[in-house]
Amino acid sequence: MELNQALEELETLQKKMYAYQCASSSLYLDSVTVAPRDTAQGRGVALGILAGESHKLFADPAVGELLDFLERRGEALTFSQRRQVEELKRSWRQMSRIPAEEYMAYAQLTNEASDVWHKAKENNDFASFQPVLEQLVAFNRKFAGYYDDTKAPYDALLNEYERGVDMAYLDKFFTAIREKLVPVIHAIGEKAQPDDSFLHREYPVEDQRKFSDYLMEVMGLDRAHCTIGETEHPFTLNFNNKDVRITTNYDPHDVASSMYSVIHEGGHAKYELGIRDDIQYTCLAGGVSMGVHESQSRFYENLIGRSRPFIEAIFPKMRAFFPAQLAGVTAEQFYRAVNRAQPTLIRIEADELTYCLHIMVRYEMEKQLIGGTLEVKDVPKVWNRLYKEYLGIDVPDDKRGCLQDSHWSGGSFGYFPSYALGSAYGAQMLKNMEREFDVWGPVSRGDLSQVSAWLGDKVHQYGGLLTPAEVVKNACGDFDPTVYTDYLVEKYSRLYGL
Amino acid sequence: MELNQALEELETLQKKMYAYQCASSSLYLDSVTVAPRDTAQGRGVALGILAGESHKLFADPAVGELLDFLERRGEALTFSQRRQVEELKRSWRQMSRIPAEEYMAYAQLTNEASDVWHKAKENNDFASFQPVLEQLVAFNRKFAGYYDDTKAPYDALLNEYERGVDMAYLDKFFTAIREKLVPVIHAIGEKAQPDDSFLHREYPVEDQRKFSDYLMEVMGLDRAHCTIGETEHPFTLNFNNKDVRITTNYDPHDVASSMYSVIHEGGHAKYELGIRDDIQYTCLAGGVSMGVHESQSRFYENLIGRSRPFIEAIFPKMRAFFPAQLAGVTAEQFYRAVNRAQPTLIRIEADELTYCLHIMVRYEMEKQLIGGTLEVKDVPKVWNRLYKEYLGIDVPDDKRGCLQDSHWSGGSFGYFPSYALGSAYGAQMLKNMEREFDVWGPVSRGDLSQVSAWLGDKVHQYGGLLTPAEVVKNACGDFDPTVYTDYLVEKYSRLYGL
Repeated sequence: MELNQALEELETLQKKMYAYQCASSSLYLDSVTVAPRDTAQGRGVALGILAGESHKLFADPAVGELLDFLERRGEALTFSQRRQVEELKRSWRQMSRIPAEEYMAYAQLTNEASDVWHKAKENNDFASFQPVLEQLVAFNRKFAGYYDDTKAPYDALLNEYERGVDMAYLDKFFTAIREKLVPVIHAIGEKAQPDDSFLHREYPVEDQRKFSDYLMEVMGLDRAHCTIGETEHPFTLNFNNKDVRITTNYDPHDVASSMYSVIHEGGHAKYELGIRDDIQYTCLAGGVSMGVHESQSRFYENLIGRSRPFIEAIFPKMRAFFPAQLAGVTAEQFYRAVNRAQPTLIRIEADELTYCLHIMVRYEMEKQLIGGTLEVKDVPKVWNRLYKEYLGIDVPDDKRGCLQDSHWSGGSFGYFPSYALGSAYGAQMLKNMEREFDVWGPVSRGDLSQVSAWLGDKVHQYGGLLTPAEVVKNACGDFDPTVYTDYLVEKYSRLYGL
Repeated sequence: MELNQALEELETLQKKMYAYQCASSSLYLDSVTVAPRDTAQGRGVALGILAGESHKLFADPAVGELLDFLERRGEALTFSQRRQVEELKRSWRQMSRIPAEEYMAYAQLTNEASDVWHKAKENNDFASFQPVLEQLVAFNRKFAGYYDDTKAPYDALLNEYERGVDMAYLDKFFTAIREKLVPVIHAIGEKAQPDDSFLHREYPVEDQRKFSDYLMEVMGLDRAHCTIGETEHPFTLNFNNKDVRITTNYDPHDVASSMYSVIHEGGHAKYELGIRDDIQYTCLAGGVSMGVHESQSRFYENLIGRSRPFIEAIFPKMRAFFPAQLAGVTAEQFYRAVNRAQPTLIRIEADELTYCLHIMVRYEMEKQLIGGTLEVKDVPKVWNRLYKEYLGIDVPDDKRGCLQDSHWSGGSFGYFPSYALGSAYGAQMLKNMEREFDVWGPVSRGDLSQVSAWLGDKVHQYGGLLTPAEVVKNACGDFDPTVYTDYLVEKYSRLYGL
């Protein structure tokens, strides 16, 4: 084989993978935004076939040979090409082990599952979701073996979302977090809570939409390349670095809900939009890992979005959007209200402090589900028990319990811990920024450009050009979760006068 | 080859074609509804590749052999399978002649063209669209040769949209129409026009959206399988018979514009939703031809939607949606206003009588463009000349002239005549219905169920199971355009007291 020809094949292969990805992303996006309700079946047929074609294309032994050839010629490749080969080879080894029929069946299942989950959540009916969840768990247990049969199944899945992370690592991480944070949460339980009733006045969706536009503007999101839609569960979807979509969900009686969804998803979008042009349409073109992705979204959501300077900057404008609802409310009151720490039921509405406990519940359940020590039928029972144990609250129904998140219906087991890791990464990034420049002066004037530039430089631009660990090292230095726990302990001690 | 295996391959092949179709439809739908503005490039890369993969799949010589084999075993096939083989073979012969690179380049071009056209229309800037239109014409002239090199290029394209139709047939058809209708249009020019000022009061988009929902309900469109969106140019898109989308465009100062778009596209949707289940995911699964499709959309839009009984049925409800705007207006006044015949600039807003003249302009231009006797740069000039000649009006700008329609930017040359043919088919269908049952009694009560059932029975259910000519024969009897011209002459003579 000629090197040039091989490199051309490498490019074509990745462009085709990109095209299949676009196709299924588009069908997915449609399904959760505008598609008529009873249309999952026909879409499932198409998605199953597209997944099968994409699998066939990539799992082809000829691709393995191409990658081997290019690996041997590594010294003749650019850095980017070497990274492409490295990443593709890793995926190829895994992918080529999943039989095409299983891969297609799984694609069809996750499509249908999304529909079933939606209805189950709507009707607070776990029983209707149970058989689908059973299949999803079974597939993931099996796939874990394909990914890496030397690892425990859940470790193999975790490794997919954040390379190098496993249960031993996370057990230690979560133990540290629990030890530091639970006493603070308890101490806050003894204190008076700030008033947040004004967050729950009537905030018409139409006005909240305009407020979202404003928030995206503050974040510097270019609307010619990034739109906002509305879905049950907010998410970010990227076609390429010029085409990213975020979604939110408006609650007319909770202005903070969509506000922080927009800032969170906006953080994901900033990452995707900031990835360099020269790796587009390659396997390196997206964010490098879920943990790093969540570091960006949660950075904007919490470290910036729930900071006093940011709120002081945007509050006057916010009062212009909602003059009646925020009459007589000060920026300081707003700051305290959106930082009210209190164990609650819904993860995506949780405050910054108790958030990790929500993740711990999910982590614990996934560990057992994929480990085979928890049956799906017992999910609601165990979920409710863990919420009582970790957060001290009773779960009144599955809708606000184990049916609240879309992740499992999408086949994601092992994703949740990324949120906690991302938060910890973010805290270290902030600390490094603060060492390098005046972060809060500009932020207090609503100017996020320097923060964004720093993240663009240290994180965004690389996409998958660096490994997750390299990006973390680049932006955080050595990983040290105490930076995160110290940040939280300090912030909440001040807020509650502990 | 075993027959069973061959039939399985036939099914798989068609399912894959369906999947690729879904993928590009989804990306297209996204692009004209919610996609951010500057995202055509990345989407174009994906669409080009998907088109190429689909082309490679179908143009494969093995597919030709499969179809030959099945054709030889025709007596062992079901009627539906025989029709599938027949249609696929026809497409295969054509498709296999288009080189894959050309096919992909064309897919990418039409994607970009849609974007360029949108902007050109917005900015009234034909020059920016010209180079793209030149390429589109050149591709279509070339493709015409691939389709059927024994025919004149435009005849070959016409045959794609309505098998058996050619310029000789259409010249005769349009001549007949012109001879019958132009004197009526002239006579109306001498008469006083009914007042239609109330159609142009301020109709808030939000209220028009609710009115659209009502219209879809009257048409019996099941919203669990059919949604409505908003685009520059209204259209209908079908994924399968359980998943159809229509779009409309709201003009706050023209309530009739979206109203008749919804009814028109609703007619297309009724067709697609009415196609039988047992041919889904095969090549027979959509409407059989553009002419038959337009017969359905224009049937609902004009023969029903612009009839006195229908307007009498819906007008009370309409006044409830728009009490201020329609205060003091009677159903009869509304009927006369939406049937006001007067040469105007915009095809999709044209009245039923002058509509065909708009089509004649486009027919004439396409004939010359594809025939090679008209250069693209001269399109605005000739367009404006023909509008003067056929409709007697001056075109003030290209935005309201040759840039008004999306068809050419989508690569459709030869589609327009289908609108006129469809109108003529529809008139014959109505005449046949009137012979068989009381059409207008139920319609005057807002009950379209019998009309829909008749169309479902005679037209919709078959999809491509019958040929276009067979469907027309089935629903119309022998084609006779005088039924259409007689209908128009009679309707407008009464309206204007000629």
